[in-house]
Amino acid sequence: MRVLALCGSLRAASINAALLRTAARLAPDGVQVCLSTSLGTLPLFNPDLEPQLPPAVAQLRSEVAAADALLIASPEYAHGVSGTIKNTLDWLVSFEPFVHKPMAVWNASPRAHHADDALRETLKTMSAVIVEPASISIPLLGSHITEAGMAEAPAVVQAIRDALMALHDGVGQQAQQQPRFPLDAG
Amino acid sequence: MRVLALCGSLRAASINAALLRTAARLAPDGVQVCLSTSLGTLPLFNPDLEPQLPPAVAQLRSEVAAADALLIASPEYAHGVSGTIKNTLDWLVSFEPFVHKPMAVWNASPRAHHADDALRETLKTMSAVIVEPASISIPLLGSHITEAGMAEAPAVVQAIRDALMALHDGVGQQAQQQPRFPLDAG
Repeated sequence: MRVLALCGSLRAASINAALLRTAARLAPDGVQVCLSTSLGTLPLFNPDLEPQLPPAVAQLRSEVAAADALLIASPEYAHGVSGTIKNTLDWLVSFEPFVHKPMAVWNASPRAHHADDALRETLKTMSAVIVEPASISIPLLGSHITEAGMAEAPAVVQAIRDALMALHDGVGQQAQQQPRFPLDAG
Repeated sequence: MRVLALCGSLRAASINAALLRTAARLAPDGVQVCLSTSLGTLPLFNPDLEPQLPPAVAQLRSEVAAADALLIASPEYAHGVSGTIKNTLDWLVSFEPFVHKPMAVWNASPRAHHADDALRETLKTMSAVIVEPASISIPLLGSHITEAGMAEAPAVVQAIRDALMALHDGVGQQAQQQPRFPLDAG
């Protein structure tokens, strides 16, 4: 299973990026987590640009199309989603491979809920499938844990592995539910 | 009174941009509305860039600092704020001249409420002062009204003028409430 990880912060020391890199390191057998580097290079969304798609947008869409699932970790800024993650999603509205894509939404700052709520509302509106057992809160913000520390903290390691296995299961279940063609061999 | 207008859509045919341009044309005496052209040139928010502020961010902040009030019109994309308007606000979080700035939030698509609600939550979190009598809903989306048509539609003209006057009053009231130094001449 190929999981495309999208980080809503561009800060080098982002706790969300550290969490996603840790997930990539700890991914169980059969699960590959790759962080997208497209988000920071995207232009601001402008539908007038769609006829000649900017290269970064084409790259992002190609990554999304190739992924079996998405994994999103994004900060809350001023009680809202980050502009970076919303801009990314704006470029994916009505992009057919995004529709029904299984995804996990991770929240590294459980005391914040506005951004998480708004992100989920947008993802559902875009017909994504949020795999709830894979969508976890991990109280990392303010914990002063380092990236190396994450991979050594049993609770974090377990939470990441369990969530990735739940995402794996969610992808498997959805694959079984997909209509198969021909729908009726008769 | 100098009003800086921020449009959350970069589309050339944006109804929000047309509304703001119309407001600039119809502004009553003593009120000057200028559309910011900075939003589309901003980089995606990254606090690591703040020590050497990108020119577009410096331009935006200078426009905000020089304005007596802000006027925001922004679309709803997938039940959320546009990435463009949120990215703009992300660059203004904790920018001192933004704090207590009076502003009007216009919604050209009253059937949509998610983006309007989220935008207001963020603005309040950033300690902006939303002037409610100046914050109007104008049912333009889907009405097929042209920009020229807006300036000829009595209901639109009246709504725009009333809102700008209410914003003018809001700025005046706030100015009276500002503490004056020295607070105590004794």
